[in-house]
Amino acid sequence: MVVGIDFGTLSGRAVVVRVSDGAELGTAEHAYPHGVITDRLPGGKGELEPETALQHPGDYEEVLRTAVPAALELAGVHPGRVAGIGTDFTSCTFLPVTADGTPLCLLPGLADRPHAWPKLWRHHAAQPEADEITALAAERGEPWLPRYGGRISSEWQFAKALQVLRDDPGVYERADRWIEAADWIVWRLCGHETRNTSSAGYKGLYQDGRWPSREYQAALDPRLADFAATRLDHPLSPPGTRAGGLTAQAAEWTGLPEGTPVAVGAIDAHVTAAAVGTTGPGRMLAIMGTSTCLVMNSDVRAEVPGMCGLVRDGITPGAWGYEAGQSGVGDIFGWFAGTHVPPAYHDEARALGVSVHELLSRRAADAPAGSHGLVALDWHSGNRSVLVDHSLSGLLAGMTLATRPEEVYRALVEATAFGARTIVDAFTGAGVPVRDLTVAGGMVRNPFVLQVYADVLDRPLRVAATGHGSAVGAAVHGAVAAGLYPDLHAASAAMGRVRADSVEPDPAAAAAYKELFAVYTELHDHFGRGGSDALHRLRALRNGTRAAGPSGTAASGEGRRR
Amino acid sequence: MVVGIDFGTLSGRAVVVRVSDGAELGTAEHAYPHGVITDRLPGGKGELEPETALQHPGDYEEVLRTAVPAALELAGVHPGRVAGIGTDFTSCTFLPVTADGTPLCLLPGLADRPHAWPKLWRHHAAQPEADEITALAAERGEPWLPRYGGRISSEWQFAKALQVLRDDPGVYERADRWIEAADWIVWRLCGHETRNTSSAGYKGLYQDGRWPSREYQAALDPRLADFAATRLDHPLSPPGTRAGGLTAQAAEWTGLPEGTPVAVGAIDAHVTAAAVGTTGPGRMLAIMGTSTCLVMNSDVRAEVPGMCGLVRDGITPGAWGYEAGQSGVGDIFGWFAGTHVPPAYHDEARALGVSVHELLSRRAADAPAGSHGLVALDWHSGNRSVLVDHSLSGLLAGMTLATRPEEVYRALVEATAFGARTIVDAFTGAGVPVRDLTVAGGMVRNPFVLQVYADVLDRPLRVAATGHGSAVGAAVHGAVAAGLYPDLHAASAAMGRVRADSVEPDPAAAAAYKELFAVYTELHDHFGRGGSDALHRLRALRNGTRAAGPSGTAASGEGRRR
Repeated sequence: MVVGIDFGTLSGRAVVVRVSDGAELGTAEHAYPHGVITDRLPGGKGELEPETALQHPGDYEEVLRTAVPAALELAGVHPGRVAGIGTDFTSCTFLPVTADGTPLCLLPGLADRPHAWPKLWRHHAAQPEADEITALAAERGEPWLPRYGGRISSEWQFAKALQVLRDDPGVYERADRWIEAADWIVWRLCGHETRNTSSAGYKGLYQDGRWPSREYQAALDPRLADFAATRLDHPLSPPGTRAGGLTAQAAEWTGLPEGTPVAVGAIDAHVTAAAVGTTGPGRMLAIMGTSTCLVMNSDVRAEVPGMCGLVRDGITPGAWGYEAGQSGVGDIFGWFAGTHVPPAYHDEARALGVSVHELLSRRAADAPAGSHGLVALDWHSGNRSVLVDHSLSGLLAGMTLATRPEEVYRALVEATAFGARTIVDAFTGAGVPVRDLTVAGGMVRNPFVLQVYADVLDRPLRVAATGHGSAVGAAVHGAVAAGLYPDLHAASAAMGRVRADSVEPDPAAAAAYKELFAVYTELHDHFGRGGSDALHRLRALRNGTRAAGPSGTAASGEGRRR
Repeated sequence: MVVGIDFGTLSGRAVVVRVSDGAELGTAEHAYPHGVITDRLPGGKGELEPETALQHPGDYEEVLRTAVPAALELAGVHPGRVAGIGTDFTSCTFLPVTADGTPLCLLPGLADRPHAWPKLWRHHAAQPEADEITALAAERGEPWLPRYGGRISSEWQFAKALQVLRDDPGVYERADRWIEAADWIVWRLCGHETRNTSSAGYKGLYQDGRWPSREYQAALDPRLADFAATRLDHPLSPPGTRAGGLTAQAAEWTGLPEGTPVAVGAIDAHVTAAAVGTTGPGRMLAIMGTSTCLVMNSDVRAEVPGMCGLVRDGITPGAWGYEAGQSGVGDIFGWFAGTHVPPAYHDEARALGVSVHELLSRRAADAPAGSHGLVALDWHSGNRSVLVDHSLSGLLAGMTLATRPEEVYRALVEATAFGARTIVDAFTGAGVPVRDLTVAGGMVRNPFVLQVYADVLDRPLRVAATGHGSAVGAAVHGAVAAGLYPDLHAASAAMGRVRADSVEPDPAAAAAYKELFAVYTELHDHFGRGGSDALHRLRALRNGTRAAGPSGTAASGEGRRR
């Protein structure tokens, strides 16, 4: 047996997995007591600025102490039979620590300093810093910038650290090291620092064996000149490497034997590839939830428009790991279902004992593709891939007085599928073959959404068999780290699981979607590639009038400090 | 006193008005017992085809017998003090009659023939005929076509008569005359046939003293060659002319003295001008309800893009009467409020004791103009003026996950205001001055909508004081027919009434709307004037898949018989 531990946004989950075939024997979840800290620090001190998202490192340790023993108990597995442990984490979740790995927020006198706390991936208050990092890199022609689709996210390491340096230099100075939570939790398990290639490459701008240059960092801020050299640098280990063995203390927490092999830290989306057998080249995996993360290994290195990151050994050793993303997917459906569906639909859903999503899906599924006469642009949260433009916004065209909510819902589902197809086509167009497509994440529970994707993409969809792809993927990493398989490919081939039946495209629907996708592409290119700046003008007008408005309409975080 | 009688879509209304100042002394409404006949003929015979809309002529007579005496009673006015009667009617509501004015549907043996019944304005089953009429006129370069913005409506006289000729030639042959209900009701009041310039011009294609030529009619269908000459032609009387005096029978129905002067028939939207003092040149009147009808007199004759009709003496003698239209206004707001507003809003509206419209308006009114970041195209029912394209559909741009229903509602209200502004600008651009703007119709009850219009149009709005503009306008026509005023201008100046306070534009909102209108215009021209055919492609795909669809999705009437 191996144990996988997935550290999510609101909770951690442990799963006990059989090494021979990947069967899940037991799983347990533990919600973080402090959840996401957005308004006020634990203890009530310090009001937090907008777009702040912090976490409590003690919560992560609680997952080790509670979820791991609970999963073992449920699996009926004796701890002595566990041969390895793997973990995965949200990313970029990033924290400042002392030389021995103690989070600064746990030091006396620093608990009331917001910047001493771990910054969760969705901490977006560092947007001005991210813009600055991108602009300077573009201006200087930094060679790593194209690896990130030309845009550095406010979620990533340099943006978060620069924000701390600017807003609380005292905290920045106190940090001996800055570390991904993915690597920090492994430090807690093994008792010594390790760093993984994936976090360094996708979130730390480490490319071709180098961090961003000292000159670049100094140009960003003279005080940041040695940031990477002193706060980040460490030998990097590729995914599946053994980081070490469980310490006595971690053994006590988890109930597992001291010395049990632990894999190096990993990013949640990336380990999922191992859980569904997509570590080979050209096997694209879409992890579809509120947003979608697409990951794929390839032998080919190319610049795919709008990709989020391209990292050697980033997902699986020996391959180029590509990541791309759709900023809004399930959260667009959720926004519509929550705010644009009338009482009669809610009543009907209640009477049928189903969710509003399920009701909308059932009603929408009845009609032939294209019969609603609608097309949408899925840019309600902006567009990451392939346009890399977060000032874009959503669009819906074709409404009549007969248009019903389930038709709009379907158009929104289709729009995200068109967005996914646009990404697949961008890979293909850049000379990076996409051999097949696998879907994981919460959306695998929605057969209507899966069918629309199969029809729009006009190819069969492999579907993850597990609902806990990250945790199982982490367990596969643990199996490799323990030497139970020679590499991730072999482990994933044996332990990765998809449903027996793939979702097959319907030829008639695929034909209609070909026409609809052509309309989508026309609108996509018109509004997204410079034909019209209407969406940017609307955003500018919105931001301008909100800033100037007399009625106190809440300003978004976009205007912070600039 | 004078009496105005307004024949609407679902009911008729009589109002007793003081001649000296237009004060409304009493009003009474009578719902048509048969309402709008769409599914089955009275008596249960004959299932009706889609898009059919018929009425029972007996219902109109009931209004004379019930609403008129009731209004007099309520007003406390002795019938002997009533000096004149005016009427107005929906248009084009059109019926086949015998030489003595008997509706064919009342003849023995014809009651079960759908085409023997009066066709209500919104009978849309003659769309194929209308398309044929337009195409042939364009092909032959008929001089009257530009007077209708280049497109003949399926609602008008020739389309309706041609449908009858094609579908039931026997009924067509039995009709000695075809007549607007506006003229037919006057025939019932006075005992002899009269015809008004307005109905003939706007609905009968009568221009410059001529009907469409015999050659044109013969080219449409040889059997139709003498349609206008034998079924329509009659001396035409301009608005406000005395048609005759009440017959003994009509006197008995109404309780008014025999011989009381009756004005010639009139179109409901047009008589409203007399109720609000906008008979002078350049005084545009918008009658805003589920759709908007814009009417204006001018000394200038020009071709305004997309106008619905341009008729000499059409609204007021001696002037060029312009009519333009917005296909969807209140019905777009109604569609959204009815199908896209979540339960919490309905609950809140109920708790406050207001309609969902009112709640959305209140919530939307709080924010500065432009702060929602949205813009919409108001084409959910197509676009009459200025694009004359009913295959267009609605569009909404700028949504984010924070977009709330009241913001979309406001964007839809704004879109119709932008549509109105586009029409005003088209008049001005064609050299037809628009001096001021008055609003009537049901929408005058919504201060939020009025303020948006004032801000978007950036000019003060005069607002009708009466909620029964058509009935009061008909009464003003009755006063002129009775010789109580020298002409409609004088009568309207004395009897027309608007609210003491006009709605003034807010400078800050007007400035923001200038920017938003520029975005609207960009999208309007891109999707409406050939930059993109996306909306037409969506419509074609919709119609194609619905026709072919396996699931029995109801086909719209657009595909009937073609």
